[in-house]
Amino acid sequence: MASVAPEVEKKEEEEQVVNPWEVSAGKGGIDYDKLVDQFGCQRLDAPLIDRIARLTGRPPHRFLRRGLFFAHRDLNEILDIYEKGDKFYLYTGRGPSSEALHLGHLVPFMFTKYLQDAFKVPLVIQLTDDEKFLWKNLTVEESKRLARENAKDIIACGFDVERTFIFSDFNFVGGAFYENMVKVARCVTYNKVVGIFGFTPEDHIGKISFPPVQAVPSFPSSFPKHFSGNDQLRCLIPCAIDQDPYFRMTRDVAPRIGYQKPALIESRFFPAEHENVS
Amino acid sequence: MASVAPEVEKKEEEEQVVNPWEVSAGKGGIDYDKLVDQFGCQRLDAPLIDRIARLTGRPPHRFLRRGLFFAHRDLNEILDIYEKGDKFYLYTGRGPSSEALHLGHLVPFMFTKYLQDAFKVPLVIQLTDDEKFLWKNLTVEESKRLARENAKDIIACGFDVERTFIFSDFNFVGGAFYENMVKVARCVTYNKVVGIFGFTPEDHIGKISFPPVQAVPSFPSSFPKHFSGNDQLRCLIPCAIDQDPYFRMTRDVAPRIGYQKPALIESRFFPAEHENVS
Repeated sequence: MASVAPEVEKKEEEEQVVNPWEVSAGKGGIDYDKLVDQFGCQRLDAPLIDRIARLTGRPPHRFLRRGLFFAHRDLNEILDIYEKGDKFYLYTGRGPSSEALHLGHLVPFMFTKYLQDAFKVPLVIQLTDDEKFLWKNLTVEESKRLARENAKDIIACGFDVERTFIFSDFNFVGGAFYENMVKVARCVTYNKVVGIFGFTPEDHIGKISFPPVQAVPSFPSSFPKHFSGNDQLRCLIPCAIDQDPYFRMTRDVAPRIGYQKPALIESRFFPAEHENVS
Repeated sequence: MASVAPEVEKKEEEEQVVNPWEVSAGKGGIDYDKLVDQFGCQRLDAPLIDRIARLTGRPPHRFLRRGLFFAHRDLNEILDIYEKGDKFYLYTGRGPSSEALHLGHLVPFMFTKYLQDAFKVPLVIQLTDDEKFLWKNLTVEESKRLARENAKDIIACGFDVERTFIFSDFNFVGGAFYENMVKVARCVTYNKVVGIFGFTPEDHIGKISFPPVQAVPSFPSSFPKHFSGNDQLRCLIPCAIDQDPYFRMTRDVAPRIGYQKPALIESRFFPAEHENVS
């Protein structure tokens, strides 16, 4: 997964660009309303936040009260499942591109910790060391080292050790996980990833091959040791909204390969130091 | 790996097409001289065949004497290594698209068995069940079942059980093998695979992601249990000439990621029943 910190670039046209590798604001900062419309996700409104509080018997997290998590996809369905006494699982991740996590990087992890505590559900955390190798000028060894360093900061958030699985792609890809990658890849054309991610013909095929890697932790069958026999278990993904393209693609493919669509709960970006915070 | 049996299509222009998924002859059958020139490989001439006989102390295999294996890349370098008392390893494979192997499919395996016996070297055999899932309308389970069935026919060729490793991609991809896949992928643009393999923007990204899978068994570091500490061991690939595009790409990438180029020894296609054999 890419950084949640925005790299604000002054562009001539002042048009906002939000994708997993670039976040650049327009003149008045990021227009989140426009993003929700453009991406086709739903607004996280007060009744839904009240429902979370009611179901979990806890006050809603301050990131909900203050609107830091502001958008979702199918969160209501996850709450329906929970209300009926069934379970779901959480999936979040981190692209290990720096030595330590800053506050922006910690937002999804702090919020995921709250969700795990409130709903008492399993959690998988993907460290996309392969992504960072592919996008940054790093060696495989350095990407793996950063994944390990970042894992320490993530563990420090205090996740439930009995219910949490943290993995690096370089260590874990293979077997059922690779089978799901190949299943997803067969459903997505080159034209489609160009439309979703803006790849160009000059991009290397590692980039074009990567979206299925971030897609498949959404499917419980990718983790046969953890979710064996629960192939239809629903998945909820807390993340920053720049990761939405990966999961639009995943949700499009899921029913075509016999899986449930993952639900999403999406945050704004952590404001950069030089930004006005209203 | 794709089938070695040619599917001869009568084309208006009678132009020959040879790539890993299509072999169609011109009017007078396949023009192998033209292929050697077009692909840029070398002819396997009498002095080289004599050298093989001299070094191994055996009569050259009938597939060499009769010109079925007719082209190569850097075979002389492999023989230099062997003459100095050093080793190399063999790599061949099979795309399991049918229940049983026919004579055409057996050509590379029968020849590889001779090479293993003559040079007393290790051998890896890749069953590309993922490729067949991606190109044919098969389930993952069916592709894996065919790989297992085909493995029985391959084992029946009588390879040295102490020196042979047969694997299916769905079972084996991961770890060091996946790391090499990602390293190769980072060196190859979409434009490049379009040039080599003729992919189109309507092709799914599974196809575009596959060439690195067939590339990396050429690198001993993809098999840390078998070749640990021998990361510069040379690899010789016996195959039909339609597989050459994969290894042109592999040879182009190898020095950029610190590995040796694989050498090749390439066969003609087994004649189809309705073809004139001169």
